[in-house]
Amino acid sequence: MIKVGIVGGTGYTGVELLRLLARHPEAELRAITSRGEAGTAVADMFPSLRGVVGLAFCDPKDAPLAECDVVFFATPNGIAMQQAASLLEAGVRVIDLAADFRIRNVAEWEKWYGMTHASPDLVADAVYGLPEVNRTEIRHARLVANPGCYPTATQLGLLPLVEAGCIDLNHLIADVKSGVSGAGRKAETHTLFAEAADNFKAYGVSGHRHLPEIRQGLARAAGSDVGLTFVPHLTPMIRGIHATMYARITREEDFQALFERRYAGEPFVDVMPPKSHPETRSVRAANTCRIAIHRPQDGDTLVVLSVIDNLVKGAAGQAVQNMNIMFGFDECTGLFHVPVLP
Amino acid sequence: MIKVGIVGGTGYTGVELLRLLARHPEAELRAITSRGEAGTAVADMFPSLRGVVGLAFCDPKDAPLAECDVVFFATPNGIAMQQAASLLEAGVRVIDLAADFRIRNVAEWEKWYGMTHASPDLVADAVYGLPEVNRTEIRHARLVANPGCYPTATQLGLLPLVEAGCIDLNHLIADVKSGVSGAGRKAETHTLFAEAADNFKAYGVSGHRHLPEIRQGLARAAGSDVGLTFVPHLTPMIRGIHATMYARITREEDFQALFERRYAGEPFVDVMPPKSHPETRSVRAANTCRIAIHRPQDGDTLVVLSVIDNLVKGAAGQAVQNMNIMFGFDECTGLFHVPVLP
Amino acid sequence: MIKVGIVGGTGYTGVELLRLLARHPEAELRAITSRGEAGTAVADMFPSLRGVVGLAFCDPKDAPLAECDVVFFATPNGIAMQQAASLLEAGVRVIDLAADFRIRNVAEWEKWYGMTHASPDLVADAVYGLPEVNRTEIRHARLVANPGCYPTATQLGLLPLVEAGCIDLNHLIADVKSGVSGAGRKAETHTLFAEAADNFKAYGVSGHRHLPEIRQGLARAAGSDVGLTFVPHLTPMIRGIHATMYARITREEDFQALFERRYAGEPFVDVMPPKSHPETRSVRAANTCRIAIHRPQDGDTLVVLSVIDNLVKGAAGQAVQNMNIMFGFDECTGLFHVPVLP
Amino acid sequence: MIKVGIVGGTGYTGVELLRLLARHPEAELRAITSRGEAGTAVADMFPSLRGVVGLAFCDPKDAPLAECDVVFFATPNGIAMQQAASLLEAGVRVIDLAADFRIRNVAEWEKWYGMTHASPDLVADAVYGLPEVNRTEIRHARLVANPGCYPTATQLGLLPLVEAGCIDLNHLIADVKSGVSGAGRKAETHTLFAEAADNFKAYGVSGHRHLPEIRQGLARAAGSDVGLTFVPHLTPMIRGIHATMYARITREEDFQALFERRYAGEPFVDVMPPKSHPETRSVRAANTCRIAIHRPQDGDTLVVLSVIDNLVKGAAGQAVQNMNIMFGFDECTGLFHVPVLP
Repeated sequence: MIKVGIVGGTGYTGVELLRLLARHPEAELRAITSRGEAGTAVADMFPSLRGVVGLAFCDPKDAPLAECDVVFFATPNGIAMQQAASLLEAGVRVIDLAADFRIRNVAEWEKWYGMTHASPDLVADAVYGLPEVNRTEIRHARLVANPGCYPTATQLGLLPLVEAGCIDLNHLIADVKSGVSGAGRKAETHTLFAEAADNFKAYGVSGHRHLPEIRQGLARAAGSDVGLTFVPHLTPMIRGIHATMYARITREEDFQALFERRYAGEPFVDVMPPKSHPETRSVRAANTCRIAIHRPQDGDTLVVLSVIDNLVKGAAGQAVQNMNIMFGFDECTGLFHVPVLP
Repeated sequence: MIKVGIVGGTGYTGVELLRLLARHPEAELRAITSRGEAGTAVADMFPSLRGVVGLAFCDPKDAPLAECDVVFFATPNGIAMQQAASLLEAGVRVIDLAADFRIRNVAEWEKWYGMTHASPDLVADAVYGLPEVNRTEIRHARLVANPGCYPTATQLGLLPLVEAGCIDLNHLIADVKSGVSGAGRKAETHTLFAEAADNFKAYGVSGHRHLPEIRQGLARAAGSDVGLTFVPHLTPMIRGIHATMYARITREEDFQALFERRYAGEPFVDVMPPKSHPETRSVRAANTCRIAIHRPQDGDTLVVLSVIDNLVKGAAGQAVQNMNIMFGFDECTGLFHVPVLP
Repeated sequence: MIKVGIVGGTGYTGVELLRLLARHPEAELRAITSRGEAGTAVADMFPSLRGVVGLAFCDPKDAPLAECDVVFFATPNGIAMQQAASLLEAGVRVIDLAADFRIRNVAEWEKWYGMTHASPDLVADAVYGLPEVNRTEIRHARLVANPGCYPTATQLGLLPLVEAGCIDLNHLIADVKSGVSGAGRKAETHTLFAEAADNFKAYGVSGHRHLPEIRQGLARAAGSDVGLTFVPHLTPMIRGIHATMYARITREEDFQALFERRYAGEPFVDVMPPKSHPETRSVRAANTCRIAIHRPQDGDTLVVLSVIDNLVKGAAGQAVQNMNIMFGFDECTGLFHVPVLP
Repeated sequence: MIKVGIVGGTGYTGVELLRLLARHPEAELRAITSRGEAGTAVADMFPSLRGVVGLAFCDPKDAPLAECDVVFFATPNGIAMQQAASLLEAGVRVIDLAADFRIRNVAEWEKWYGMTHASPDLVADAVYGLPEVNRTEIRHARLVANPGCYPTATQLGLLPLVEAGCIDLNHLIADVKSGVSGAGRKAETHTLFAEAADNFKAYGVSGHRHLPEIRQGLARAAGSDVGLTFVPHLTPMIRGIHATMYARITREEDFQALFERRYAGEPFVDVMPPKSHPETRSVRAANTCRIAIHRPQDGDTLVVLSVIDNLVKGAAGQAVQNMNIMFGFDECTGLFHVPVLP
């Protein structure tokens, strides 16, 4: 039984961490912080947790975080980089669900995120928490940068091809659709129900913060830079990411077999049979990524479909998976949820 | 470990039973039948169950149902009444999620359901599976009539008042809103997405089949007939029932305390603090009923709000709760799901 | 051709006024104000108006409002009461879509709206703009208080019964469901897509600001106070209000005929055939109210169903209808929209 | 005033034709047929048309179609090809909203649609009704093949580039998202609300019937075959198509200017300013196509975004636009609808 703290528990990744950790047999929730809601019972803010989570939010300065074995940051970008160092010094392991430690090139990070990095030294220490790539490093990591939701769906869909070197790496396309919870719980006009329902739009076509993260992951697998056009879209659903990816074939392969081999033994990646069309609801509320591969009209363009729940495999679930790996638990502990369908 | 069979597993109550039973530590799924889909792997029809349920649908006549300890009927109305008798004779206990055994007055049942009852003798044997009322009888029941979704939400909201005899029993009003999954998985025009989305309507105002079921339950609690106006509405959401109930006060009480006393110790009924407004999503995918009581402007009309997930506490979850009681398991076994929010 | 100004055009009632007025053959849009968006082209904020509305938002102090024939206030509560007087003095007629002039009892208004009224003298002058009740007064009104959305649906559904004196006036019940656009375009957490979608809840059961407005309208029709329990609900749809109303019969009538007589000749009220269930989408984007009357099981409780589009008959459409009456145009001018279904 | 008939009026394109034609100042609805609903008042099936359309559905054999000036087929594929010939012989002009006359290569059509063509001779006579390409031919057409919804959005987005010859024609990608009404009003499981809501999926990746139609249109513009990967997706919204298209630049151009020139003067195509992100709701219920062009990171891949309402510019609105052209009316007659937002 390990002691767990959460910094910033009032957003969607926070409440999802609570849903997962509250039933985790090896984790004990010790503290959850919120500057604005200190003193409020967690279950008063999220009635779904009545009878499940007995804690109240506490002020960050009063929270017994240094006594925890692991602390999750479910905060906006720019918070963990200020607070992680002192926790790490106290021997606490840290998993950041925001973007602070995801990009190894600090200058690049500062450009995309529009702020000066407060802990550039820690960036090199951080392990990018995509278990399907970095399982060994995660095991020993003190600081894990939990991947973004778009990057998780996109990298899992493209990595087998990139690693195999059988596609044109200069012209990858990822057309990705996200549910509205991906925008967080902050009150903003464009994510109001009456704005986002019964509507569909692209956004950030000129450049989205997840682009450098995806490129970094693919480049590392390729051993060289990659060219990627990444177009995110806002979809009128609560949870779910659907990535539709297009790659030009440069060398023939049994692509279905390639994916099946790559993910054999992966507990949370499901390569579906040929000609499948994964639906986002088939992973709703679960930590699974489902992938299908198509080759329309036997042409030279592959289409890869990849779906995840953005709040689970795209955030809190993957963070718990990382925690399981870091502490030597079975990787699936506390993550046996069956997707909720319908 | 008990052996479990499901008759009719291709509808929403069927797939929800599978979601719950697949992770139930005391139940082993032995057979799931479907005349139309015999031979199809369950996980091919419901990809959410890939890696979770390994069974294929089998033809009812080939299914080893008689070897099961309990068989659930997740069939349309009129099927269980034809098949339950032979299973009961074979010593199998039966839980019917349809309406065949819910109404004790067979003539009344035949009027509302438009068919002749095939097993009128069994009706008297059947126990109405609302644990908060009939827990003791359920324990020994061979045949359980699992309540309807509207009747569950409505009875749990009105029973404390009816039992206490402090309201006008002749003019109860239940204005109830249901998600579209309540209409089942059968292809029909009025439940198409393009018909039911971004739309709201009442239906069946002249008379809905759940009316006699609710009246029977309330009358039994009252010891006399009750007058109830019941108006169901189709709501553009997948899951959830929200019952808004109105009752005229005839004797003063501490109504909040009355509800808290009535449901003290009930693991699946949550009486919220005064002035609360339960949301359907606060019970999404969980077996909980949340209730709040209001007395607007301190007048003589009480307003009771009651929410459930129609597929869980309103169907499959309550059925598993009944199974737990029937077989002496802890009543919460396999039902510890934290509601999925957002 | 009359000259029209709009104060506060960045909310939903503002953009809906623009949709309707842009094609109105007798109205010419002269100015639309917004303090925060002064200088922004209207069509840049609302791309649906590209090629339709050429105006830019202008600062209120620069707007040629005093040169208009009529000015609509599509502002939050508390603005029109500060600015109406000077416009009226300049001979401009005013239609307020907010609540400032709806309640004749100023003390009551101040209690529910939590502010001191800035123009109590004008309240007595204002005409409540429900044409089906006050058509004659509206014709000559200088200042029209456009009704709220809930009050429009509810009053139109109950007025025939209240006027006829055939129901128990002390125990009326209005269970009303609103689309999320009713909460406005202001960024707030509880109306985010990820909060309001796939969810249903009541709110304000203890007391909602539309309660005194509805009671005032019904009391005026009754000639005495009325008792009303009013429960609003937030429904996961963009537009639409569905009011389900319950009334105890005190004198027999042909209720269907009563409604048909009451609304004969009304261009925007459609009394549907007996046993109908009006859907909100059947009036989507149109100025119609559809009503159906039921008497379940021939008991003593009537059920009235009433639907409107909250932004049209519940706000901007009714405001244009009032404008048509005030300026002697055919009442339907510019309001011939066929509802958008599906 | 021309006399208009509609064959097959119970689907979504049928009811949308009725919405548009009922207010068309030059068209008089004479007959609307439905084998299954003969005798039913149109407004009983579609209450949105109460007070707007007075006709009843009539049996096809009794309908005075031969007396009409134009007949619209809003039928499933395979009907118009059987009935158009006799109407054309009677001098009636025909607009088919289904696919019967869209593909000039009859063998290709038969392969994709799985039936033998009943009127192969008429195919060559038919004019493909995309006014932005074929306006002149439409003017004199006796038989118009109204384009599909996906093909309209996709062709309008790619044509300027294809015609200019500045992109790689062998590797075009169209990732297209459609609202559920695109699947029609037929009762099918996969388009039920509880299946399609809060969910997103691709379908038909191996090959969709609209692929040959799009390829034909682009090839005609290019003067040579084109290579296109087309992936349709089912999106949880009622109306709307959003096409995201990717093209490799082969010759530099001012692409924004290219689009603006190409569509200058087009009443129903709106080229938005650079960096825009058109939303489907910005064209909801209107006949407009909005397009934006992006060149992410100034690379060699163009991204074109194109949105339409699938039932208007993608079906009934475009059909009325074609009718206007055929009969010499102003092309915008009866199509001045302002999009409904929110």
